[in-house]
Amino acid sequence: MNISALQKARYAYNPKLPKILSGKIEDISVELGSPTESISNRSELRVIFKNTYGKPYVTFVKGKNGKLKRKLIVGVILSGGQAPGGHNVIAGLFDGLKKGHPESVLYGFRGGPSGLINNKTLILTSEIIDEYRNTGGFDIIGSGRTKIETPEQFASSLETVKKLNMDAVVVIGGDDSNTNAALLAEYFLANGSKTQVIGCPKTIDGDLKNDHIEASFGFDTACKTYSELIGNICRDTNSAKKYWHFIKLMGRAASHIALECAFQTQPNICLISEEVEAQGTSLEKIVEQICESIAKRAANGDNFGVVLIPEGLVEFVPEMKKMIEELNDAIAAEEKPFSEVTNLIDQMYWLSSRIPESSYIILQSLPPEIARQFLMDRDPHGNVQVSRIDTEKLVVGMVEKRLAEMKVGGHYSGVFSYQTHFFGYEGRCAIPSNFDADYCYSLGYSAFVLIASGLTGYISSVKNLTAGAENWIAGGVPLTMMMDIEHRHGARKPVIKKALVNLNGKPFKTFAAKRGIWAQQTCFLFPGAIQYYGPSEVCDQPTITLKLENEK
Amino acid sequence: MNISALQKARYAYNPKLPKILSGKIEDISVELGSPTESISNRSELRVIFKNTYGKPYVTFVKGKNGKLKRKLIVGVILSGGQAPGGHNVIAGLFDGLKKGHPESVLYGFRGGPSGLINNKTLILTSEIIDEYRNTGGFDIIGSGRTKIETPEQFASSLETVKKLNMDAVVVIGGDDSNTNAALLAEYFLANGSKTQVIGCPKTIDGDLKNDHIEASFGFDTACKTYSELIGNICRDTNSAKKYWHFIKLMGRAASHIALECAFQTQPNICLISEEVEAQGTSLEKIVEQICESIAKRAANGDNFGVVLIPEGLVEFVPEMKKMIEELNDAIAAEEKPFSEVTNLIDQMYWLSSRIPESSYIILQSLPPEIARQFLMDRDPHGNVQVSRIDTEKLVVGMVEKRLAEMKVGGHYSGVFSYQTHFFGYEGRCAIPSNFDADYCYSLGYSAFVLIASGLTGYISSVKNLTAGAENWIAGGVPLTMMMDIEHRHGARKPVIKKALVNLNGKPFKTFAAKRGIWAQQTCFLFPGAIQYYGPSEVCDQPTITLKLENEK
Repeated sequence: MNISALQKARYAYNPKLPKILSGKIEDISVELGSPTESISNRSELRVIFKNTYGKPYVTFVKGKNGKLKRKLIVGVILSGGQAPGGHNVIAGLFDGLKKGHPESVLYGFRGGPSGLINNKTLILTSEIIDEYRNTGGFDIIGSGRTKIETPEQFASSLETVKKLNMDAVVVIGGDDSNTNAALLAEYFLANGSKTQVIGCPKTIDGDLKNDHIEASFGFDTACKTYSELIGNICRDTNSAKKYWHFIKLMGRAASHIALECAFQTQPNICLISEEVEAQGTSLEKIVEQICESIAKRAANGDNFGVVLIPEGLVEFVPEMKKMIEELNDAIAAEEKPFSEVTNLIDQMYWLSSRIPESSYIILQSLPPEIARQFLMDRDPHGNVQVSRIDTEKLVVGMVEKRLAEMKVGGHYSGVFSYQTHFFGYEGRCAIPSNFDADYCYSLGYSAFVLIASGLTGYISSVKNLTAGAENWIAGGVPLTMMMDIEHRHGARKPVIKKALVNLNGKPFKTFAAKRGIWAQQTCFLFPGAIQYYGPSEVCDQPTITLKLENEK
Repeated sequence: MNISALQKARYAYNPKLPKILSGKIEDISVELGSPTESISNRSELRVIFKNTYGKPYVTFVKGKNGKLKRKLIVGVILSGGQAPGGHNVIAGLFDGLKKGHPESVLYGFRGGPSGLINNKTLILTSEIIDEYRNTGGFDIIGSGRTKIETPEQFASSLETVKKLNMDAVVVIGGDDSNTNAALLAEYFLANGSKTQVIGCPKTIDGDLKNDHIEASFGFDTACKTYSELIGNICRDTNSAKKYWHFIKLMGRAASHIALECAFQTQPNICLISEEVEAQGTSLEKIVEQICESIAKRAANGDNFGVVLIPEGLVEFVPEMKKMIEELNDAIAAEEKPFSEVTNLIDQMYWLSSRIPESSYIILQSLPPEIARQFLMDRDPHGNVQVSRIDTEKLVVGMVEKRLAEMKVGGHYSGVFSYQTHFFGYEGRCAIPSNFDADYCYSLGYSAFVLIASGLTGYISSVKNLTAGAENWIAGGVPLTMMMDIEHRHGARKPVIKKALVNLNGKPFKTFAAKRGIWAQQTCFLFPGAIQYYGPSEVCDQPTITLKLENEK
């Protein structure tokens, strides 16, 4: 294989493990807590998870454990969007299994959950694993977005694990995938299968966290990669003093990425979707706030700056949210007739009698390129594909218009030029930071210990993440403990709630206390590229969000 | 100052110098070669550069030099677009000056050449310099794009250096800025001023190079930053197997950046503007070539890939070039009336009788967003702003259309989804790689030696760049040696020719030999983030382009 110099060098990196996991394997014992409860809707969840509800919290402690040196057959799935470190979860799991018993087998299910449904596997040998250690991407076995939902899909999955005589399946994924893991664990038990199911918390968005999961893996590396780029742009605009840069960042449901990048780079403005929703801020008002900063900086002679915009913003702005919902409904109701109307003018005419006037006026006020994005192909659930809306261009267009008005009114006397950017795909497959490399390897290793200890319906858990790897606390959290019920597509479904930015939490409050100064002055930070070598304060730091959260 | 951990750590980095410069300052002697000649138009250039034409080539060698320990007053200018390492040129110059004499003074001219014209300066102290060592950006004194052109501008510049009793001015810039430096050197001499002028080769585009300049600084860091991102996207698409990514890269006149990034990441397709021009390839034909790769990969089940597109491509496609020129002329001829036509339909009507039909048909065939970009505000020379044309979207739109036709014809049976990207601002102010940090510091230090040795009209030169810093050869190249005459804006002007990608050179030929396989197979490389620490093969390598060129 033709590989880069850094990839080759990273092969030699030994991920750090929590102390309890780095010793002899037969000395890792499982300490069980008391039975647990779900977040709410307990009686309802107890029915759904008859066999797996309410298991005890698990911590690994020093002590004899006869179960770990068994021959096991395990399968692993990468589910959903890529996040740096996925390969290390698999490597940690593999190394644990082989340490437990050299004849243990690890199957990779190809292309995500569909690999389990359709029995598409690859036996992971040490040669294969070694080619992927400490690398980014999910290409070792591929990923996929199939959800195991229908009775047929559950049955096929059961058939696969039976055929393979599988002791356990590890699902590496986000909130939805871990909910799926919980349902699968329950289904296997209910159907008399021995196959255990263990989840692993993955997502660059950082929205899979709670009292028991401090961070999802990949968030660290992705945020550092985006921050490198944002910092470079900050330095560029501070040198050229010519442009306002409007940067959209991945993160649809939650603004954790934008918030962390704001800590790392100190831009002039960072919008937080959760705050916009909580305060019911209109798009006009958001634009007004941005223009205020632009005008103040222009008054100081600074006609440049940086604005961070979370990808999902428009869904949190009340009037836009309403318009999107009304458009989704109108188009879903007459999908075929609408699909036959191809140009924007005709589409607008078609919609004029089908959506309320308030939303029609908003749609009409958008630049044609943007309006067209709101009317593009829906996703499989009939929703607009928010990731394809150029929110950064929408905002900048409105800012430009408003500044022109302010100029006429004598409230702005600067020069406004801009550039727009969108960062997402650039960070999802970066080579994992030391933090993510260590964290993921530990999660995978912990998953092995949970499996070998005979547990099912758990998510692998590594905590105390700001204390240095050797002090990390490893164990497992029963998936039902993180569960709730939500109304989705007309039915009540068990879900792991997405963790949004908590407006009363320390990270947001810290940001809110600083942003006033950032908006007027130039306080940019330039974090630079992720370093894998060099001083520890450069190459081993967790995210600022995590540090602030763990300070509480 | 609130700074990032990496920035702090980088302050401690000691840039490596060529052996000759790392010893005692009084031991650096100047070896003069024979008188030189310009590339062509020699008699004409001899008249323009009466006092500075034909100076000898200069190499620094071991030997006594009484001139270096003098008190000097020097000014420095950052000119044009940012490139990683500019601060280190200034640091090298500063350290040389202070080593020569502790009372020597270094002025920074603020905001580019206009700082010289308007006498806007900042005295650079060791406190200021220390805050900028080994950092990206040009923010230490700012940059600017003003050209010193009019007699008044030359006179004001002379006045400034007289007022400051300046021994020399160092101009850090690209081809145009170094041409300007040559003219300034000549002007100062012709007007009896003692002020010497020394240039430094800067540009991320990599197009300021020739037999005497192996590389312009910043190219290394910028290409590595873009390659990090492209590699991450390659890994992403190799994991998700869902998208074709079309990535536009900075570099308008030359495609060196695209070519270097292609070496570092091995994408499926990389367009080279120089080849397109040489072969007269139409846009249709380019699209055809891309679609051929897409179809072949689809036949293997690979509905994903990566395409690199140099920013300036459309100016090299014959029919587009013609259309652009005709649009520029038509609009320039009736600038005001055209500016009053605001919407695209009316603009098209206005143009229909003013540009030849062949170009009108092309313009009409473009998606409206793109057509509008061709008609936007002109630059100060009346030219369309090519950097604002979304060439990647233009190409992807045509690819989509062509694939649909191929599907109907039975020549394509894949699924085509895409993402587009533009990388430019992300790399211009990155923290300089070790290579650029060393190279820039050496260029600055050499500039000091040239100044102290009493030379003017030279560009600082450091060669043998693939041999390790201590073996680098330092000296100076007379600027007139790199000169030619070009017809610009109706007059014959001295210029330093931009170095385009040489289709007969080793880099292009190496690429051409490999791209056939890349187009069909998946040969992606994942270089990862720039490393400043760690194994030398990871953190001290020059570009592949430079290695191939120096192999010849």
